[in-house]
Amino acid sequence: MDEQPVRVTPRIPGGMLELTPGQQRQFNCMQQQIAGVYEQYGYAPIATPAMEWQEVLLAKGGGETAMQIYKIAGEELALRFDLTVPATRYAAQYQDRLAFPFRRYQMQPVWRGEKSQLGRFCEFWQCDIDVFGAASVLYDAEMPVVINAVFEELGLGDFTIWLNNRKILNGVLETIGCSGRETEVLRIVDKLERGDEAVLIGALENLDLSRTAIDELLAFVKMDGSDDELLAFLSGARYDSAVYRDGVDELITVMSAVRSAGVPERRCRINLGIARGLDYYTGTVYETTLNKYPTIGSVCSGGRFDNLANNYTERSLPGVGVSIGLSRLFWQLDRINALPVLSDTPATVMVAPLSPEVLNYALDVARQIRATWRSVLTQMDASMKPKAQFKYADALGVPYVIVIGGDEMAGGTVTLRCMRESHQEAQISLNEAIALMG
Amino acid sequence: MDEQPVRVTPRIPGGMLELTPGQQRQFNCMQQQIAGVYEQYGYAPIATPAMEWQEVLLAKGGGETAMQIYKIAGEELALRFDLTVPATRYAAQYQDRLAFPFRRYQMQPVWRGEKSQLGRFCEFWQCDIDVFGAASVLYDAEMPVVINAVFEELGLGDFTIWLNNRKILNGVLETIGCSGRETEVLRIVDKLERGDEAVLIGALENLDLSRTAIDELLAFVKMDGSDDELLAFLSGARYDSAVYRDGVDELITVMSAVRSAGVPERRCRINLGIARGLDYYTGTVYETTLNKYPTIGSVCSGGRFDNLANNYTERSLPGVGVSIGLSRLFWQLDRINALPVLSDTPATVMVAPLSPEVLNYALDVARQIRATWRSVLTQMDASMKPKAQFKYADALGVPYVIVIGGDEMAGGTVTLRCMRESHQEAQISLNEAIALMG
Repeated sequence: MDEQPVRVTPRIPGGMLELTPGQQRQFNCMQQQIAGVYEQYGYAPIATPAMEWQEVLLAKGGGETAMQIYKIAGEELALRFDLTVPATRYAAQYQDRLAFPFRRYQMQPVWRGEKSQLGRFCEFWQCDIDVFGAASVLYDAEMPVVINAVFEELGLGDFTIWLNNRKILNGVLETIGCSGRETEVLRIVDKLERGDEAVLIGALENLDLSRTAIDELLAFVKMDGSDDELLAFLSGARYDSAVYRDGVDELITVMSAVRSAGVPERRCRINLGIARGLDYYTGTVYETTLNKYPTIGSVCSGGRFDNLANNYTERSLPGVGVSIGLSRLFWQLDRINALPVLSDTPATVMVAPLSPEVLNYALDVARQIRATWRSVLTQMDASMKPKAQFKYADALGVPYVIVIGGDEMAGGTVTLRCMRESHQEAQISLNEAIALMG
Repeated sequence: MDEQPVRVTPRIPGGMLELTPGQQRQFNCMQQQIAGVYEQYGYAPIATPAMEWQEVLLAKGGGETAMQIYKIAGEELALRFDLTVPATRYAAQYQDRLAFPFRRYQMQPVWRGEKSQLGRFCEFWQCDIDVFGAASVLYDAEMPVVINAVFEELGLGDFTIWLNNRKILNGVLETIGCSGRETEVLRIVDKLERGDEAVLIGALENLDLSRTAIDELLAFVKMDGSDDELLAFLSGARYDSAVYRDGVDELITVMSAVRSAGVPERRCRINLGIARGLDYYTGTVYETTLNKYPTIGSVCSGGRFDNLANNYTERSLPGVGVSIGLSRLFWQLDRINALPVLSDTPATVMVAPLSPEVLNYALDVARQIRATWRSVLTQMDASMKPKAQFKYADALGVPYVIVIGGDEMAGGTVTLRCMRESHQEAQISLNEAIALMG
């Protein structure tokens, strides 16, 4: 205790998002709004350990993922890189105790050792829902219904949920002669909306696609039109592929159920260019964009994954789900000032005793205000001068200060200061003060 | 997708607590209760990254801690082992933006590579509050006030918050000739209540304490009596030590303020045997026991740490705080059935369509029930037989099922089944059904 400490510069690793208390309050508020809607739709919370066996995490195959995981030194463990894989492991592990279809939500951080770039984080929160054992394609229709309710609740303006079906894309690839290379091709198609088209065409040529095939593929994924026009085109198109027809049937069923559930037409639209980069999707795929902030990209994405659980169990546990990347969404909205600015304290009133003698009275006043469900901060250091107390309240952003001096204690009153108006009501009753704070 | 997957047994690493959805709901409920009280006292939320620079985590010195941390392979990073060190780093790092005293709460998991034993976890949640820049010892009095409110809210029966002051113990050690060995001696004293006394006496003898010194120390820390008796003894005792007298003065001040703030006398008591194993505590120390479950040990502990921030900054940022080890508390209460058993779903009603034709009507009914703020689960697979639907609702623990068949759709009605009573009200209006669900 008396040793001279070795001083270390306080800092965090790169690519981590650390918030001010005010930002954290806003972040937590969004998190609670999302969880509230998830629960309203009957999704139950689960939480999985940060560390999993590497073998479990990488069961579905290595690739890019394996390069990005953080491994624990000297152990066969690694940090989870998403929530879908741990949740699938959970569903498989506890299959005898769970009732299927199993709806779960999960809101936890995940870690990826990506080269950090602006707005990409090495630690970020995901807010996922998935249904496991969702054999019926109608579960695919529940995702846009929940997404719609979540983004209505978040109040970030209007938004669009984009739907497509991997089977349709796979069917098209099959008929233009790209069978066996679907994953690589779709990973490139997934980048079309954000990337340089010439570069991506080059990448497709490198996969030995003919120029005709590429042109046909691009014309398909870039097709524009109303949902009815697109569905009419899809139904009438001459692609001779069973998987294509399956995909179109599924898309029709899903769109119809989404409409029945009350999602406005403008909010849920077909987009044949949505492919999703992940290779485990097998059917419906989703993306969501905020109409006011298109540059943010997709804020909620997902899809159907029929075979992921087969890495852990013989039992068929098809899944469908979506994920909100909350850290990225928060960071993007915050930097363009699209979020309300909250103060650094939840307290709406600070009780400020002006001398040690009145501390006991001040503590009692604080207790009484708390009984009205207000958040109350008591300034315990009664040696602080009034000016310093107000400065502190101002820095914290507390809207009201209750000043307690000798006169207040003697008269059983309080003095209420409204910080914004720099206005004071001296020696009023506590009930009056509470009423004035609204 | 068509490859035969290599099947991996779904499992988690040892020493991790993974809950059923029903348990997780209960866990989250406790977490929200704790956070709610923390906010009521003006503590603001922060969250720090799971990974910190090893140099930062270990700045206060290695010891046992250094052996227990999980390091990230190939990086100078490690997982946090507590929340106090990252919060102190946070307070030091953002000292120019924060208003001090800075009250923060933080509820996140921490990781320690301990040899796992029953009830000890390698990953566990802590729910901490701390005040940084808390120069006045009166902040020490706020901790029992908040702990009292938290455990009243949790409703686990009556409890006792035990208070002591490290300075008193250090003063005693000084006068019996143990200066310089305080940390080692107090780590042994800390184990007295749980350990074998003979073994601990042996350990003290190994530190070269005379038998007389040991007897005097043990008589001191085991002293029993009411708070008034103990304070009278402490004030009158003949320990000739400035640090001892400081400690007694602080204890008197803190106890008096705790009483003024309305904490019942039986709830906050002096215990001269409380030492806390951690070496960074410098003054007041706390433990909390549940009266009904004494074997659980301390469920909320902490203390004042005046110098921890000096590892990161020249500025004096004395801290005081407490921590609830929620995973351990939850696990202990759960295994003795001291917690309410919640169902595996938040849904209070399941809407069960009996054929694909009525799905649209069922979705609309679900939407209307949700508007009454109920959690509603829609069984999307309309090909499921009624019996299977009820079996599923029963397995999930949903109290009510709304059955939708052709007759219900034709008549604009619903059929309500109360699962517990196996009673059905056929073809009633939705409003009647909602009223019956209470």
